[in-house]
Amino acid sequence: MTDLPLVRLQEGRERRVRNGHPWIYSNEIQMTPAVKALPPGGLVRVEDAQGTALGTFGFNPHTLIAARVMSRDPRVTVDTGLLATRLRRALDLRQRLFPTPHYRLIHAEADGFPGLVVDRYGDILSVQLNTAMMEALRAPLLAALREVVQPRAIVLRNDSPSRTLEGLELGSETAFAEDGVDLTQPVEILENGGRFLVDVLEGQKTGWFYDQRDNRAAAARMAGGGRVLDVYTYAGGFGVQAGLAGATQIVLVDRSRPALDRGLAAAELNGVKNVSAMQGDGVFVMDQLAGDKERFDLVIADPPAFVKSKKDLNVGLRGYRKMIRAAASVVAPGGSLLVASCSHAVDMEAFTNEMRAGLAKAGRSGRILRQAGAGADHPVHPFLPESAYLKAILLQLD
Amino acid sequence: MTDLPLVRLQEGRERRVRNGHPWIYSNEIQMTPAVKALPPGGLVRVEDAQGTALGTFGFNPHTLIAARVMSRDPRVTVDTGLLATRLRRALDLRQRLFPTPHYRLIHAEADGFPGLVVDRYGDILSVQLNTAMMEALRAPLLAALREVVQPRAIVLRNDSPSRTLEGLELGSETAFAEDGVDLTQPVEILENGGRFLVDVLEGQKTGWFYDQRDNRAAAARMAGGGRVLDVYTYAGGFGVQAGLAGATQIVLVDRSRPALDRGLAAAELNGVKNVSAMQGDGVFVMDQLAGDKERFDLVIADPPAFVKSKKDLNVGLRGYRKMIRAAASVVAPGGSLLVASCSHAVDMEAFTNEMRAGLAKAGRSGRILRQAGAGADHPVHPFLPESAYLKAILLQLD
Repeated sequence: MTDLPLVRLQEGRERRVRNGHPWIYSNEIQMTPAVKALPPGGLVRVEDAQGTALGTFGFNPHTLIAARVMSRDPRVTVDTGLLATRLRRALDLRQRLFPTPHYRLIHAEADGFPGLVVDRYGDILSVQLNTAMMEALRAPLLAALREVVQPRAIVLRNDSPSRTLEGLELGSETAFAEDGVDLTQPVEILENGGRFLVDVLEGQKTGWFYDQRDNRAAAARMAGGGRVLDVYTYAGGFGVQAGLAGATQIVLVDRSRPALDRGLAAAELNGVKNVSAMQGDGVFVMDQLAGDKERFDLVIADPPAFVKSKKDLNVGLRGYRKMIRAAASVVAPGGSLLVASCSHAVDMEAFTNEMRAGLAKAGRSGRILRQAGAGADHPVHPFLPESAYLKAILLQLD
Repeated sequence: MTDLPLVRLQEGRERRVRNGHPWIYSNEIQMTPAVKALPPGGLVRVEDAQGTALGTFGFNPHTLIAARVMSRDPRVTVDTGLLATRLRRALDLRQRLFPTPHYRLIHAEADGFPGLVVDRYGDILSVQLNTAMMEALRAPLLAALREVVQPRAIVLRNDSPSRTLEGLELGSETAFAEDGVDLTQPVEILENGGRFLVDVLEGQKTGWFYDQRDNRAAAARMAGGGRVLDVYTYAGGFGVQAGLAGATQIVLVDRSRPALDRGLAAAELNGVKNVSAMQGDGVFVMDQLAGDKERFDLVIADPPAFVKSKKDLNVGLRGYRKMIRAAASVVAPGGSLLVASCSHAVDMEAFTNEMRAGLAKAGRSGRILRQAGAGADHPVHPFLPESAYLKAILLQLD
């Protein structure tokens, strides 16, 4: 046996974990004074009330999700070697899926790294350590990343609010960078054949949203020969890919001037012409365009999360309805509409309901061509379907 | 006003229809003796209880779904011209989506043709008239298809059980065929770059399952360099596309010898080598292979519907669990598994539950790479989410 501390479940609480669920909640654990005093993020052995081993978990006595499985083996050694083996498995999968080294390399529990996110921008890695366990494993993890991926730099974007829940501090830092790597310069990536610019230090989240890759390709198929409105464009992903697919005119909309500038720079980088930018709130701009009788053959509305926590649910759902009503109002007859939500608390059914209501308010009908989540580099743990946060619906309107 | 018969809704039953739902149920209608005597499938004008027009509907006094919208315009003339306009819209969408004329051209309500299915195999059309309204519109519909698509033959595959619910007879017939068209010969189609053979007269449903096109492409991405088991192969779709993506060995499994022969012929047509066939029940064959310690890098289990009606739900769900357990048991470590269900009564959540249970029974863990339905040539009416019958889950197993 290893000398890891032992944590015992309450009587009868082992079934879900034994079936394959990766989490144990705090009320399922025998919270003795010794267990309560364990350091957040440390590894523990977990047994059921009868003393049968359930595996090796990362433990945090202060959080609702108290234990996250690292291995079903109670005697495993969690070191650089084990982490490197899992990284290689994740890397093999991405190398099979994508032609260039631009993807989400690690998507948390589904890749066997609870709370870890690693986005790969060529030889730059952008990392989020979102659990106390990953924070505690920082040193072997960085060693494993360097061994397996051999990056030129690793940036820790530890500014995600989920760290606060785990009692961790917020902040970004460069964990390591080879001489000559200037992280203040945008990093160029390839997605669906298009070139894009990522701000690794200051961009939102890790800098780029790979999760929309397949949805961007699906939307682009509807763009050829038409006018495109890309609302909440961020760095031009949807709009520029529509341009590469043959859109004749593209309008990018965002609140943020730096985001618009990055989108315009991406358009130039790809030789996409007739791209303009409008700075402002998405719904406000769409309402204005509708009033001016402007119509587009493809409209994309992919906003930041409207629902940050469950208490915002109703306000956020009304926000989506309003956004979809505004977006549908500027779609030309026969044109297409892609709407998305990345709010965890809004599931596909709820989002689809708002889509229907928004269409009805705009007096539009049509057909759903695609309902999808994130791409395959954002795998979902079979026991955490609720972690599939992205919902995108592509419609053709009459 | 047209001289169509008038059907009135019960007090307060207009809201769902006015919001955009395409159906009216029989208990929402004022079933006067005159209304009850209307001919099944005839067109009617529908008004709410206050006399406000709701549109032009196809009506069947004998079915639970009593009225299906044809147009929100109460004064429209439903003739070859109107049907041709809708066909052109549907054709434009498919021509935008696909490089060759091989797709579902009309997918019922979502394309504005309640209960009509048209699959296109180049210049051969395979048609299902699944409602009394479509049966009543047969003549102008065939005229519109000939005008818009200019096919060399149209086959009516009117052997779907849903016709029985509408009081229609079952049977297949050739509506028209140019001289020199021999429908007893297989028709060659292209899907994802592969060549396949369709038996238009005797094949299942319309002859080919275009709905799995995107899922076949997604599975094929996991096939390169590996051994593939394609269970319930039908005509070789998944297996042969895996071969084109670089699978080194492929085993096709089906109960039906003609289906296996068609799959083997497709393999030959595409120059895909090392393909063998095993005739038998899918679960039985997989259990046998598991016992023989055979393992595959990609396993596909895409069976016919296990749940034909709601009363079979529990038996069918157990069937899916058993199938998934058997399929997971023959996946090599690190290999992939695609499981699918085309049962209307089983939604994605229920199927995902059985997937989890089947994995647990096989003692396997892994990650979901993709959860998807049918491709974009099978659009979904926004108010009929339950019509999205296809569920496919692609996993990578540890």
